Amino acid sequence: MKTPVLYLIPAPLSAISVSAVLPQDHIDVVKTLTCFVVEDVRTARRYLSALGLNPAVLKLEVLDEHTSPGDWYGLLEPLRQGQSMGMVSEAGLPAVADPGAELVALAHKEGYAVVPLVGPSSLLMALMASGLNGQQFAFRGYLPVKAALRDKKIRELEKLSAKEQQTQIFIETPYRNESLFQALLLCCGDDTRLTLAINLTAPDAFICTRTIAAWKGNSPDFAGMYHKKPCVFLILA
Amino acid sequence: MKTPVLYLIPAPLSAISVSAVLPQDHIDVVKTLTCFVVEDVRTARRYLSALGLNPAVLKLEVLDEHTSPGDWYGLLEPLRQGQSMGMVSEAGLPAVADPGAELVALAHKEGYAVVPLVGPSSLLMALMASGLNGQQFAFRGYLPVKAALRDKKIRELEKLSAKEQQTQIFIETPYRNESLFQALLLCCGDDTRLTLAINLTAPDAFICTRTIAAWKGNSPDFAGMYHKKPCVFLILA
Repeated sequence: MKTPVLYLIPAPLSAISVSAVLPQDHIDVVKTLTCFVVEDVRTARRYLSALGLNPAVLKLEVLDEHTSPGDWYGLLEPLRQGQSMGMVSEAGLPAVADPGAELVALAHKEGYAVVPLVGPSSLLMALMASGLNGQQFAFRGYLPVKAALRDKKIRELEKLSAKEQQTQIFIETPYRNESLFQALLLCCGDDTRLTLAINLTAPDAFICTRTIAAWKGNSPDFAGMYHKKPCVFLILA
Repeated sequence: MKTPVLYLIPAPLSAISVSAVLPQDHIDVVKTLTCFVVEDVRTARRYLSALGLNPAVLKLEVLDEHTSPGDWYGLLEPLRQGQSMGMVSEAGLPAVADPGAELVALAHKEGYAVVPLVGPSSLLMALMASGLNGQQFAFRGYLPVKAALRDKKIRELEKLSAKEQQTQIFIETPYRNESLFQALLLCCGDDTRLTLAINLTAPDAFICTRTIAAWKGNSPDFAGMYHKKPCVFLILA
């Protein structure tokens, strides 16, 4: 391995103190860096300042869903100059349910060390708190937007979870959380367990596992308290 | 939700300082607890002492693969007495690739709050550092031990990863790491990418993604430096 390192730096899931996000030793590592690839400059600058970095000396380059593959190469320039650098996403772990994996792949191809730091993963925090099967699980990203396709996918995933005892994890654009929740109540069997993990790490975080039957008539307040709050959905039949 | 909380407390993956494991705010939360369900009393006591808890006042109950389902009920007694408690596994996240999920399920059934703390997950740290697809992935636990069944499973998983662009994540008992690695070289296509994430978070941690073709003749030192060290395997075809 070449000595400069690409550090993968988890970001907060909610507006909490940085001392609830990264272990202290990892904060100290981040403070030694000045070059970062980030998903959004404004949020990243705020986060890195809160970690104690001097915003005036930071060099931030953007990698988001609009970055063209032709621009990835240039983003690793600090490593080629012998300088370690960091990658930060909008929330949670970089390169997981997020852009960035291709840049990590490029770093491996060029032989640089890649070091993941410890921090919040909404998917795994939801899984461990669900009580569903943590020995077999799959993350499915976003389900289709169109209702008919979405419902078909839900039924497929429920069948698969029954067959392989595999917990199915998926997410939704927050303003569509309630319609996905209602679709799950309609499409899944009464005994299937559904976990909702809403606004993880925030003071109003809500994590609850119930059977579909028990969720009926017990909807979380998606229109009020949990309006447009991020939610991880998990099912196991 | 009833007020007492079941906290899920991640544990170190390697023998490192606790300030590299949990964020400071979470260490402070753990310090308020005295009752814990643990996988191994000796390791848990050492870890909790390192976090600053007084070992003399700790009440530790064991939950491991030998615990019979009839004993789970009693393990939540502190919650029923109105007292928050913690769950700690041997390494990484409790209830993920580990016993404990059933106890979390029971806590949900009885209506207690379950709060996951931030900490190291070898599976997700390996995934984010792999550069493989983080938008679709599945954790498969252990593959079959018998060579013929194992090889069949490897081919199935490779096919599935190609079809769904789903990263396949699996683990092995450390003394069998080398034979699994050799089987992957034999069973997978030359262009399939394989990530090895060995001894994560330790000073000798090794994370590397290469094509099967590039791994041939480039085996990590499983017999020496990485003898019996935990390894996460990831493939994507």
